Amino acid sequence: MTSAHLYTFDRSEDLMTRARKVIPSGVYGHMSPTLLTVGSYPMFLARGEGCRIWDVDGNEYIDFMCSYGPIVLGHRHPKVEQAVNAQRAQVDCQNLPSEKWVELAELLVSITPAADWVVFAKNGSDVTSWALAVARAHTGRDKVTMTSGAYHGTHPWCAPLPTGIPAAERALVATFQYNDLEGLKRVIAENKGQVAAIIINAFRHDVFPYQEMPTLDFLKGARALCDQEGIVLVLDDVRAGFRLNLGGSWEPYGVRPDLRCCSKAIANGYPLAAGMGREELRGAAQSVFFTGTYWGAAVPMAAAIATINTLREEGGIEQMRAMGQRFRDGLEQQARSLGIGINQTGPPAIPFLVFDGDPGFERSCLFCGEAARRGVFLHPRHNWFLMAAHTERDIDQTLAATEEAFKVVKAKYGG
Amino acid sequence: MTSAHLYTFDRSEDLMTRARKVIPSGVYGHMSPTLLTVGSYPMFLARGEGCRIWDVDGNEYIDFMCSYGPIVLGHRHPKVEQAVNAQRAQVDCQNLPSEKWVELAELLVSITPAADWVVFAKNGSDVTSWALAVARAHTGRDKVTMTSGAYHGTHPWCAPLPTGIPAAERALVATFQYNDLEGLKRVIAENKGQVAAIIINAFRHDVFPYQEMPTLDFLKGARALCDQEGIVLVLDDVRAGFRLNLGGSWEPYGVRPDLRCCSKAIANGYPLAAGMGREELRGAAQSVFFTGTYWGAAVPMAAAIATINTLREEGGIEQMRAMGQRFRDGLEQQARSLGIGINQTGPPAIPFLVFDGDPGFERSCLFCGEAARRGVFLHPRHNWFLMAAHTERDIDQTLAATEEAFKVVKAKYGG
Repeated sequence: MTSAHLYTFDRSEDLMTRARKVIPSGVYGHMSPTLLTVGSYPMFLARGEGCRIWDVDGNEYIDFMCSYGPIVLGHRHPKVEQAVNAQRAQVDCQNLPSEKWVELAELLVSITPAADWVVFAKNGSDVTSWALAVARAHTGRDKVTMTSGAYHGTHPWCAPLPTGIPAAERALVATFQYNDLEGLKRVIAENKGQVAAIIINAFRHDVFPYQEMPTLDFLKGARALCDQEGIVLVLDDVRAGFRLNLGGSWEPYGVRPDLRCCSKAIANGYPLAAGMGREELRGAAQSVFFTGTYWGAAVPMAAAIATINTLREEGGIEQMRAMGQRFRDGLEQQARSLGIGINQTGPPAIPFLVFDGDPGFERSCLFCGEAARRGVFLHPRHNWFLMAAHTERDIDQTLAATEEAFKVVKAKYGG
Repeated sequence: MTSAHLYTFDRSEDLMTRARKVIPSGVYGHMSPTLLTVGSYPMFLARGEGCRIWDVDGNEYIDFMCSYGPIVLGHRHPKVEQAVNAQRAQVDCQNLPSEKWVELAELLVSITPAADWVVFAKNGSDVTSWALAVARAHTGRDKVTMTSGAYHGTHPWCAPLPTGIPAAERALVATFQYNDLEGLKRVIAENKGQVAAIIINAFRHDVFPYQEMPTLDFLKGARALCDQEGIVLVLDDVRAGFRLNLGGSWEPYGVRPDLRCCSKAIANGYPLAAGMGREELRGAAQSVFFTGTYWGAAVPMAAAIATINTLREEGGIEQMRAMGQRFRDGLEQQARSLGIGINQTGPPAIPFLVFDGDPGFERSCLFCGEAARRGVFLHPRHNWFLMAAHTERDIDQTLAATEEAFKVVKAKYGG
């Protein structure tokens, strides 16, 4: 067994000591170091290039978190950076939008079969919450339904923790289980004529449990139910959009939402969110209040145009799928040959690995920590992401690290 | 009377025709061209440098909207752009924060007497809504109070239009009038023991009516009431912060909030919001869910550090105050000599002009439209902003344009 690199995190630790004084918890939310394997991961990053990232102590990693989704082509991708440089020399955030406002909207409508129009914002949560307002304005109804445990953002109606959120602000949200069409029908029947929207993630990617692809029956059934009951079907494509399919993650199923919410991979790391909709909902979209200081900024829009065009021209979606499959196959073979039980779920471009009999994620933490100390940045509790910059060589280098990490798990926990 | 430039807006109009096909209303929210003087303003901008901006038809303007606040030093300010260039070469949006996360938090705490800690987000609305959650978590109470007509963002509890927002999501918000301490006391008494937070803008800058500075009695009374009743006092400093006072807009009054919400001018146009708080609220801040994909991005934080340091080193706050006063004095003199009744309100760095007897803003629209056609970008219905890049020469050139614009108003409406 080769040993792990002698990764040290002195500078990370110094920064965290300082951070804890001036920021609650030092680092909060999805970037909190307590979600990773304490002691085996850095806490601050310093540089990124292609699929490689470097922490503040100079340690290098192959990145499989992609900034939790946004980096879809690769860090500092030349075509995106070139578009950003050109746009920055002209205009970014101003009193009025730029040409890019129009160009990007035209591009998104042209590649999204379900969309006739687009709106822009900053956070994914801005557009998922906006979608509910549009649906409520359109239907004149107040209630909404989402799948139990799904992540749709930080707004009070959907934040994963209820602390500081009045019960009244969550009382209008009914839940059902992902892929449970009968359960969905039951919720709609129990709230007959009162439900404005059904909001569903592209696939089930809740933090912690196995991921789950939607069944065709579930999506078709939800679509039919919406048509029958006059409910707006919302696809939350924030995490999966532009990584599985440019035109919408349900396109391969032939099921079209009424509203589609996007962010993350849309602009390769530049801050942007987009809501898209069908013609019938344009009036409702015009009627709701929706604006933000930075929402017309041109640089993220120039980045989005370059990102989408590059993904198209260079077959980025196919590359992520192929490299994700190569990674999955390699992990499967390593675990099998060591007699370790694992379960890999989700699409190859947004994979996740869970160990059998590991409800507390101890094996995952050990495995990912050992991988991190060998230069591979995975996450023990959150799904991973491929980027188009991952090559066969990167995957093979990654697999060399995971082989050793599996052996450490085997040594401690057995098969 | 000198005539207006022969400004034409052909390219703006072409872009708007295209925009209307793929975006509801073409341009929505605060950038909607219907809020300006239709026919006299561009609808899309192409370039900015210092205090000058150019529209897509090549027309030049002295900018007094500052992108609705963010541009505080000047468009493409060299020190900010240099900091951004250096940061972009390293890291922006990644799996973990950068050093800038810590450096900016330390800087903000060092300049903000009321703050012991900081959190970061993207939109002003992210942090005003977060402040309510922190206050609710801290007090265990559900209700909040705000001043009637105030703008605090786009979240359902505060969006200026109720379309698409269930009444239940706004039922927990009670209102009172700005500067009406007795009214505030009444609301708190009527909701005895139930109010978690009082949220108040730095000064009254609601869209449309006159602006109003807070009275010392009002701020001191609100502070005392909060102390007495265990209520969290929230300063919404999103629009005014870093333009009136680096350490908080109420510092000159000697009144300190428990939480301070900032965005806009914090990073000279780069997207960033910050919430700050007192030590006693750190635990509550740690307990609420608060995160977003782009919130740890390093580039806007590098921009914020450069912006704040440059404002400090170059006396930007004083410059904006002095140039705002010069602008105000000039307008006052012009109106007086023409016998036109006007009312100028708000602080010099965030001024607003309203014509007497003009409830429909027809005179304002004519005045601002004539100014726009003479190369000065004001707004008929929304307060204006100074930036540190405005020089005496810019103000004097502006006043030459407003003199002509006043004469057109005089010719049409009389005194």
